[in-house]
Amino acid sequence: MIRWNNDYNHGAHPAILAALEQTNETGYGGYGLDEWCRKASEKIQSYLGRTDVDIHFLTGGTQANFTVISAALRPFQSVISADTGHINSHETGAVEHCGHKIHALKATDGKISAEQIRKEALLFAQSGTKEHITQPKLVYLSFPTEYGTIYSRQELTDIRSVCDEYNLYLMVDGARLGYGLGASTCDITLDDLASLTDVFYIGGTKCGALFGEAVVIRNDDLKDNFRSYIKQNGGMLAKGWLLGLQFYTLFHNDLYFRITRKADEDAMKLKAAFHAKGIPFYLENPTNQQFVLLTEEQMASLGQNHVFEYQFPVKPDRHCVRFCTSWSTKPEELDALIRHIEAL
Amino acid sequence: MIRWNNDYNHGAHPAILAALEQTNETGYGGYGLDEWCRKASEKIQSYLGRTDVDIHFLTGGTQANFTVISAALRPFQSVISADTGHINSHETGAVEHCGHKIHALKATDGKISAEQIRKEALLFAQSGTKEHITQPKLVYLSFPTEYGTIYSRQELTDIRSVCDEYNLYLMVDGARLGYGLGASTCDITLDDLASLTDVFYIGGTKCGALFGEAVVIRNDDLKDNFRSYIKQNGGMLAKGWLLGLQFYTLFHNDLYFRITRKADEDAMKLKAAFHAKGIPFYLENPTNQQFVLLTEEQMASLGQNHVFEYQFPVKPDRHCVRFCTSWSTKPEELDALIRHIEAL
Amino acid sequence: MIRWNNDYNHGAHPAILAALEQTNETGYGGYGLDEWCRKASEKIQSYLGRTDVDIHFLTGGTQANFTVISAALRPFQSVISADTGHINSHETGAVEHCGHKIHALKATDGKISAEQIRKEALLFAQSGTKEHITQPKLVYLSFPTEYGTIYSRQELTDIRSVCDEYNLYLMVDGARLGYGLGASTCDITLDDLASLTDVFYIGGTKCGALFGEAVVIRNDDLKDNFRSYIKQNGGMLAKGWLLGLQFYTLFHNDLYFRITRKADEDAMKLKAAFHAKGIPFYLENPTNQQFVLLTEEQMASLGQNHVFEYQFPVKPDRHCVRFCTSWSTKPEELDALIRHIEAL
Amino acid sequence: MIRWNNDYNHGAHPAILAALEQTNETGYGGYGLDEWCRKASEKIQSYLGRTDVDIHFLTGGTQANFTVISAALRPFQSVISADTGHINSHETGAVEHCGHKIHALKATDGKISAEQIRKEALLFAQSGTKEHITQPKLVYLSFPTEYGTIYSRQELTDIRSVCDEYNLYLMVDGARLGYGLGASTCDITLDDLASLTDVFYIGGTKCGALFGEAVVIRNDDLKDNFRSYIKQNGGMLAKGWLLGLQFYTLFHNDLYFRITRKADEDAMKLKAAFHAKGIPFYLENPTNQQFVLLTEEQMASLGQNHVFEYQFPVKPDRHCVRFCTSWSTKPEELDALIRHIEAL
Repeated sequence: MIRWNNDYNHGAHPAILAALEQTNETGYGGYGLDEWCRKASEKIQSYLGRTDVDIHFLTGGTQANFTVISAALRPFQSVISADTGHINSHETGAVEHCGHKIHALKATDGKISAEQIRKEALLFAQSGTKEHITQPKLVYLSFPTEYGTIYSRQELTDIRSVCDEYNLYLMVDGARLGYGLGASTCDITLDDLASLTDVFYIGGTKCGALFGEAVVIRNDDLKDNFRSYIKQNGGMLAKGWLLGLQFYTLFHNDLYFRITRKADEDAMKLKAAFHAKGIPFYLENPTNQQFVLLTEEQMASLGQNHVFEYQFPVKPDRHCVRFCTSWSTKPEELDALIRHIEAL
Repeated sequence: MIRWNNDYNHGAHPAILAALEQTNETGYGGYGLDEWCRKASEKIQSYLGRTDVDIHFLTGGTQANFTVISAALRPFQSVISADTGHINSHETGAVEHCGHKIHALKATDGKISAEQIRKEALLFAQSGTKEHITQPKLVYLSFPTEYGTIYSRQELTDIRSVCDEYNLYLMVDGARLGYGLGASTCDITLDDLASLTDVFYIGGTKCGALFGEAVVIRNDDLKDNFRSYIKQNGGMLAKGWLLGLQFYTLFHNDLYFRITRKADEDAMKLKAAFHAKGIPFYLENPTNQQFVLLTEEQMASLGQNHVFEYQFPVKPDRHCVRFCTSWSTKPEELDALIRHIEAL
Repeated sequence: MIRWNNDYNHGAHPAILAALEQTNETGYGGYGLDEWCRKASEKIQSYLGRTDVDIHFLTGGTQANFTVISAALRPFQSVISADTGHINSHETGAVEHCGHKIHALKATDGKISAEQIRKEALLFAQSGTKEHITQPKLVYLSFPTEYGTIYSRQELTDIRSVCDEYNLYLMVDGARLGYGLGASTCDITLDDLASLTDVFYIGGTKCGALFGEAVVIRNDDLKDNFRSYIKQNGGMLAKGWLLGLQFYTLFHNDLYFRITRKADEDAMKLKAAFHAKGIPFYLENPTNQQFVLLTEEQMASLGQNHVFEYQFPVKPDRHCVRFCTSWSTKPEELDALIRHIEAL
Repeated sequence: MIRWNNDYNHGAHPAILAALEQTNETGYGGYGLDEWCRKASEKIQSYLGRTDVDIHFLTGGTQANFTVISAALRPFQSVISADTGHINSHETGAVEHCGHKIHALKATDGKISAEQIRKEALLFAQSGTKEHITQPKLVYLSFPTEYGTIYSRQELTDIRSVCDEYNLYLMVDGARLGYGLGASTCDITLDDLASLTDVFYIGGTKCGALFGEAVVIRNDDLKDNFRSYIKQNGGMLAKGWLLGLQFYTLFHNDLYFRITRKADEDAMKLKAAFHAKGIPFYLENPTNQQFVLLTEEQMASLGQNHVFEYQFPVKPDRHCVRFCTSWSTKPEELDALIRHIEAL
């Protein structure tokens, strides 16, 4: 069985295991105050072309999301998100557990627009009884989205303008950032994200690391005491250098970008195979997650050799399922899947 | 200027002030452990025809809502509510501040249906990854709703069935309960509410009291340590007998029911006057809040003598505004308003 | 039976009931946006000799405490309090429920010293791993304390200095403020409190009102969006003018000061009677709560006619009990108690 | 420089890195639903001699602590802990951030006694106003403590009795569990802990793993929906098998016990060397953390080759510092340190 069900079913890129081996005999300072975290920060800053950002390494995405939001918001403030956003749909209410309401906007293919955000911000701005409602203060986007789509430079610029106009923070969840930046149609780069957002994170867990996310904070207001928030929310790894070392390795010689771009290319081959077969998609996207609509017969056939993730039934007689490529996809695995698609 | 903008712009029914006068020289035990709270509980229980309910007196509706929800839910559990529900739209995110997500269902005239609730409950029940989402555990309804509509016995019975099927608590916010029960089309009584719900409250603030809400808990699971929740959430009045005394007075000789039914009758006269003038309504309802669609000219004209509450613009050239009658509405005030409507 | 068990066992000063009667036919704006709240604020400001303070009216002390603390602190910040402080010992963990640790310092007669506060602040200031501990940010004092003692001007000035040195907010819980300011040994005035603290509140519930506390915010950092915090925490009374009206009445013609000073004088007569009888005290204080050490026999004897509050046993054969005078104490009640003490 | 400052300054036991290498080409299910987590659970259960425990793998100790406490307590309930307990002193108020008060009892050498716990439980049990205070519901102990001491079987049995008497949960933080069980004076075994406690965890981070703690839940009341709590609190590793694999490796062939016992033996040699030199200790303990009192001169001398952790000054002229041995201590490092001590 070959696993396509998600992009976090394999350990780590071999370069990371090698780095762990090479440093295993060395002692380091605790809690992220070590040379590898420092080096990884500098390396990432060099990609961003700026040193005015704070970079912190956390163990996972849910934690990164609620820790940033906890640090950014006061109790009466709230978050604007797509209804399909990970914080709204897959994190067991962690943001609300921290005390904050999410204004869930109806997403289109996983995305929300500047106009939708403006409309929500206006509801508050024009309210005559502001103390009876929460104040939207942070816009949360995923890049790529949970449906594999990406925002264009223009879309992000428009959203940034609305954020500036209504004094909102812009946060980007980049759990799959590499797959977004690596997409053939992507017209932004890593440093653009630092310029356009107040805070974002670079996903490691799904992009070649054993685990870990690098939170990049540009807005000075969000930098203050961030390490206290990490510790209080349980995200401070005792052996923090394990995270720094992984990110240093990923950003050495563009490894992060190479392995995720390759996964996107694999996904496009997969997409082409389904297309060639006339199999419809739930939506089209240029990244590593592909949402196809299979019949039960097709599911049964492919399911003999491949693991994919069931999403939901689609009338009248199809089912949306997800196939993910990743940094760990092997050529022979892709070939096998394509052959099986062709044989449907 | 005559105030129709809300139903909480006057002090209290004279009987309540009289009761305060008569007891002012007497000393009582603190924190709701006094004879008036006991008597008021017994009086309300006699209306319910049952003694197996716990009754607590809190100072206001927002507090009653989040205190009950805090007590009822564990951290990973969530609330199902109409999007127009008070907890979702007018309480500054108090429920989320307590850590709980609200599943806001699209309301129709302020109401949600058993079918909508079942659908939401099913999303969780059928989920294969329950630990990644919150568990809906409590259904919150308002009776009457924020738009003055009321649920029928059949609708409540259907909702109760869904709650039983999916093991959900049913909570009714009765901030305006009297106006709901007093409606000519209402086919339930106070004791029905105790039977159909796990917990509900009888609004005092908007129904003749200076302030206060009586929380009625039927489900034994929700009774445990409720006084600790009241105290922790700031809702335990030191001079608790002030609340007990007010509710005793309101439920003595049906006062509560008489004054709210009268307000509904006044509202129907008001409605008839607008109808007679051909003025449209945002929606039709049988209770004390009437939502009419006025032109700017009509607003200006009525605004010379009357205060009403602006809601929102309605295309192309009308505005939804709210007129509330209440226990404090005087015949001459109603006459004046009707005359001004007729003169439009 | 005459109640001395606490200072909140009677309704309100007659002037307050009269004011409620006089305004009962008038309609007012909701949620504290009304003329009585405005007038009461201006009246209190005139006593403070300054208009640069925001004044908000809340329903009770627990609520005032946690609402102010919620508004003042970020999640990683904590409170310094006497271990006997009300927030630490009688509010069901409401401050921790809001997410904040209390550093409980060992009190002496209910008080903590500038030196103790400095020592606690230093623990953080000198810590090399600040992100692993909470940052003390607010000092909470009660005036008078839960044991009826009061801080001198010098003590408060010293505490203020420490607060300035370590960038701490100073908050005073004035649930019994009148009884503190009315004490014969008190060397501060109401306006001193506004100058020395960042925020404090003037207790109404225990000082002549039916209920209510007036929160006075001097520090601009704490003013921002405070009404949102009140609403979110359930402390915003729909009929807010009921609070404004009560405080206006209390501060009209010094009523607040006269009735609480009188209660202190009564307490001193009570104290003298116990002293004359050679009955020891748990501690000496100049305010309305007196903590005496009675034998079981004395408790039984006085208990025939008087209600007092049991505190705890004191070795070898005595029991600490509390007698409270208040604004509602009648001369004949005091006489009766003194006669009974003399007859012990 | 040789690091003795803590027991988490090296990566992982080589067997763990080898296991990561061997499994790196294999795909696994996510979020702890995989064969390694299952195998590790079974392996640990075999050590416990029981299968009626749930075992979950979390990324770190702070997270394990507040996640368990969040799951165990209702909002009005609180925790009893030593004042030196990790949750009270080194976790940035994470427990209070989750809404729960900690009753911090004065520790003796890091430990609290059954008698102290009973006294605290009695305060609540005997209170006449329980709704005004929090209900202690969980006792938190560290084994070994933050000062390296361990509870005897008798002490734990006594504490268990108090917990049974007052209906309290008993939780043991075993971040350094191996070092406690490996102590020459330890008279309990791993399975005793499962019998004596309601929940405890087996520390991996400080005992040979890269990271991770295994939470063992015996009490059925605490098992319910625990995975939801893990996810909501950010502790659910996407690649959960990385944790299962590490614990499987540690519990294969007693590795966990062998490497921690060895570290304790090393610590005893270290202790003997200081003793032989007449250097006093802050306290005596049988585990891997040794707290010695050095002069400034001795600190300077040892500091040339060794890193140790400064604790606090001790009058008149000494300083408490911590030396930790660990699973990663090498014989030549220990020899070097002992030689340098002898040369002081």
